[in-house]
This record gives sequence, structure tokens and C-alpha cells, in this order.
Amino acid sequence: MSQNAGRLAIIAGSGFLPYYVAEAATDAGETPFIIRLQDQADLDWSKFENASVSVGDVSTLGRLLSGHGIDRVVLSGGVSRRPEWREIRPNFKMIAKMPSIIRTLLSGGDDTVLQMVIGLIEAQGARVIGAHEIAPGLLATTGSLGKIGPTDEDRRDIAKAAQAALALGALDVGQGSVSVGGRLVALEGVEGTDGMLSRVASLRAEGRISSRRKGVLVKLCKPQQDIRADLPTIGPSTVENAAKAGLAGIAIEAGRAFILDGESMLRIADDAGLFVCGIDVGLAGEMM
Amino acid sequence: MSQNAGRLAIIAGSGFLPYYVAEAATDAGETPFIIRLQDQADLDWSKFENASVSVGDVSTLGRLLSGHGIDRVVLSGGVSRRPEWREIRPNFKMIAKMPSIIRTLLSGGDDTVLQMVIGLIEAQGARVIGAHEIAPGLLATTGSLGKIGPTDEDRRDIAKAAQAALALGALDVGQGSVSVGGRLVALEGVEGTDGMLSRVASLRAEGRISSRRKGVLVKLCKPQQDIRADLPTIGPSTVENAAKAGLAGIAIEAGRAFILDGESMLRIADDAGLFVCGIDVGLAGEMM
Repeated sequence: MSQNAGRLAIIAGSGFLPYYVAEAATDAGETPFIIRLQDQADLDWSKFENASVSVGDVSTLGRLLSGHGIDRVVLSGGVSRRPEWREIRPNFKMIAKMPSIIRTLLSGGDDTVLQMVIGLIEAQGARVIGAHEIAPGLLATTGSLGKIGPTDEDRRDIAKAAQAALALGALDVGQGSVSVGGRLVALEGVEGTDGMLSRVASLRAEGRISSRRKGVLVKLCKPQQDIRADLPTIGPSTVENAAKAGLAGIAIEAGRAFILDGESMLRIADDAGLFVCGIDVGLAGEMM
Repeated sequence: MSQNAGRLAIIAGSGFLPYYVAEAATDAGETPFIIRLQDQADLDWSKFENASVSVGDVSTLGRLLSGHGIDRVVLSGGVSRRPEWREIRPNFKMIAKMPSIIRTLLSGGDDTVLQMVIGLIEAQGARVIGAHEIAPGLLATTGSLGKIGPTDEDRRDIAKAAQAALALGALDVGQGSVSVGGRLVALEGVEGTDGMLSRVASLRAEGRISSRRKGVLVKLCKPQQDIRADLPTIGPSTVENAAKAGLAGIAIEAGRAFILDGESMLRIADDAGLFVCGIDVGLAGEMM
């Protein structure tokens, strides 16, 4: 990418997304430098030049960015906890901002924390870009992605769950919700999508959710979300967990959600009889 | 109660609320007839005249109401599942309504189902009244109910969680939410309040919720809710579960939430250092 003078860094949290982004970057001619977040990054990164940083250690991060000539940073993967303020190792530039940093860490919503993290990285002289700019091929497209499409009943569940997911998103809480037979049964909080799906599976086994209606999972980008971080992601395990929860399928936002290992995921979905579709949230009203 | 020609029936679901209502009714000079919901009512009702009805058996219910001269019915206690439509035993009057009844059971929100149940009971000739009309002494009042009051930080969590609970309520999903240090961490769905609190306890143990901020549980009546059924309820076990989840306290809506076994509950709260307070939701804006 000749227009960029510097190198690309990927700050890697948990899960497979950072790896897909790193491979896409390599395919695009980049030589990404991987900054593994300690206790979060859980893959073998030996194929790429990499270094480890503990969550909150902005001082080391700044040295890595300048030491490797990095001008662009992608944030990618999960971070299961925010740093306690005692873990923040500020550099000189940050000292004056520490009170507001601590306040944000202690009581900000996830988006507020992300905005702060982006600001801190950009203060080190690098630009934060979205994973989708490096790996646009991972973004969901509109319509049914596998062999199976949603039924009319599934579409009603999609509309119901999408309405809830948007309301949740506006509160800066989770991105997902599950509707079964027109009834909202679960809303995602800190437990995450897999945690919520395993709850739905338990409630179903206990007979507290209809055994005759399947239902859908919807994951949407929060309305006010900075799409440079934390786009909703699904992959093979999401489909497996949705199948265990007895759902008919999954709907995600086209253009604002990542699909990981899409080929395996769609094979699993087809075999299990689940649909996976990308929806245009601007059209959600028309689906109801 | 001389103004009532007929007898009072209490349709009893799970939990202790129906028993408190029955005792309050007895204290008020009523001789309540208890209609135990099969697989739901879980107390020893031998102290009261009673009969069992399976969920959905409107035919038997109608015969009990007319056979015992019942003119008022209180719905009280939990119902963990809605009947499958095959379980509905309609009486003659209901036959024509069955298609809409089935549709409501299959896809209505909880409030829609409740409205239908109320309509079906009233079609049998009895009036459905609220448990609070029989047992007004169980309603929460405004302010701190135990020895401990919320701190300023707790008040911010109350405002945040109340905002979420109202948004959830408008979607006809759960009544409760948990905010920790200004961050919404859990929203109640079909799992119920105790299920949500045990999730918060797990997330806390896993380090996914701050260990330095306590947080609060807020339970509110849904904005559009018929207060003749399903008012939020807390009791000793709610306080115990909130303590296990590491929370600072619980806020409920004054005048629209029941407190069961208040004396034990407040003793447990005082001992565990938790506040319990009644809030005026009309004033929620001022708390923020």
C-alpha cells in the first residue's frame, strides 16, 4: 500500500478475528506488526512479528508504535475486562489526563472506553483505522448467506429482536438479543453472545421457552458506535451455539458485522438447518 | 367486607406472594378460596380451602368460580411457562375466541398474555383485582427501607439501571437491570431476577465486572403494565442473591412493587450492608 509511509499494527484481543485481519493485511501487501494484549490474545502469533503488552500499559504501547514506525493501528478481538486504574502505566503526555481516564474506566460505557482508547493511541502519533478497512471481505452482505432463508415467522422474530438490539445499543450495553415466536427472551449484557445463547438453551431445556417456536438471534452494531472497534462478529461457534439453543437462524447487520471462517460457518448452518442472513437495519421497519 | 356480595379467590402461582396476599385477605375479614396452579403453586395451602387447576384449564376454573360464588379474583405468584395451546380446555363461551387465544399464547409478550388471561377470567363473571388492593401493606414505600441508604455513586447506578429497566419494560421483556459503576452489566429476560443476579455473581467472579465498584439492582413495573398482575416483587432471597452478586443495594418502585417478609429481608440487608429503597420513577430524571 504505497500511500502509507509506515507500518500497520494490529492490537490483538481474544478470538479469531485478529488473525483473519492479519491474513487479509498480508494478502494486501502489508507486513503487520502484532501487539498481543496480555491475558486476552489467545492464538499462536509466531507467524507474525509480535510483542506483548498488558492491558493499560500505554507507555510500552507508545514505545512499540514509535520503535516499529507504525502509522496505522487496527483494534481487533475481544477484551474481556477493562483495566483497573492501578494497571494504567501512563507516559509523560498522559499524566495530566489521568483523572479523566480513571473516571472513564470506572464508570464509562463500553463505547466511552473505546473512544478513550482510540484517543490515547492517536495521541502516540498513529491513526486508528477499522478492521473492515483492512479486511472488507469479512463483512456480512445483505440477504441469506447459506442455503436456507428465514421464513415469515423468522422475519417477525428478526424485526422484534432487531428493535430490542437497537434499544440496547442506544443504552451502550450488548449488541444481541433473541426473540422466540415474537417474544423477546434474552438480552445480551456483559456475558456476551455465547453466554446469552447458552442461557437460552437452558431456559428451553427447562420448558420456560416454547418448544414449538424456534426463534432467532440478532446482533447489531450499536447505533452510535465507532465502527473502528468492536463490530459484531459471528463464526462457526456462534452457529453451533444457536443450534444448541434451538434457534432457526441468525441475522446480522450487512456491512457492519464480521463473519469469521464463513465457509465452515455456512456448512455448519446448512447441515444444522439454520439460516444466516445479513439485514439492512434501515429497512427493519419494513420487516415488521 | 360487606360491600362485596361474593367470595374472593386467589389464583396462586409459585413463590410466597400468594400466601402473604391470602393472609392479608384473612386479616381483612375475607375467607379466600385458593386456586392452586398445577406445577406452579409450591406452598402448603392446607390452611385455606383450595383446589388445583392446570394452567390453561379455563373450563375447570369457570366451574370453580361459579361453584364457590366467587366475584373477585386476585392473580398472584409466578407462572414459569405459558400453556401450550393443546393444554387449553375451553368452555363453551370461549370456542369462538380460540384462534386469537392461540395466537396470543404463541407470540404475545407477557403483558399481552396477561391481558388475555384477565379477559378470560372476567368472561366467567368475576372481577380481577390487584393483589395490592387486598394487601396494600406489602407495597414498597419511598426512601430507604433499612438502616443503610444509597451513596451518591449508588444513586447514579440507580438512575442508569432505571433508565434501562424502563426501556426493557417498554419492549415487554424483563423488569430488572443491574448497573455497576455507571455501566449496565445485565438485563433481565425470561431467566428472571434471581437468574440475572447469579449471572452477575459469575461475571464478577470471572473478573468481567469491576471488583472495586459494587452496583445496584433496579426492578421497575413496566410502563404500560396492568398493575393487577405481575408487580415486581423482592424478598429475603433477592437480598441474599444481590449480596452474592456483590451489589450495594436494591431499588424498587414505591407503590408498584411488593416486599415479602419485609422484616427478615431488611434484617438480612442491614447485616449484609445492603440498602433497599423505594424510588419514585417520576423523579428518576432528577436523580441523574
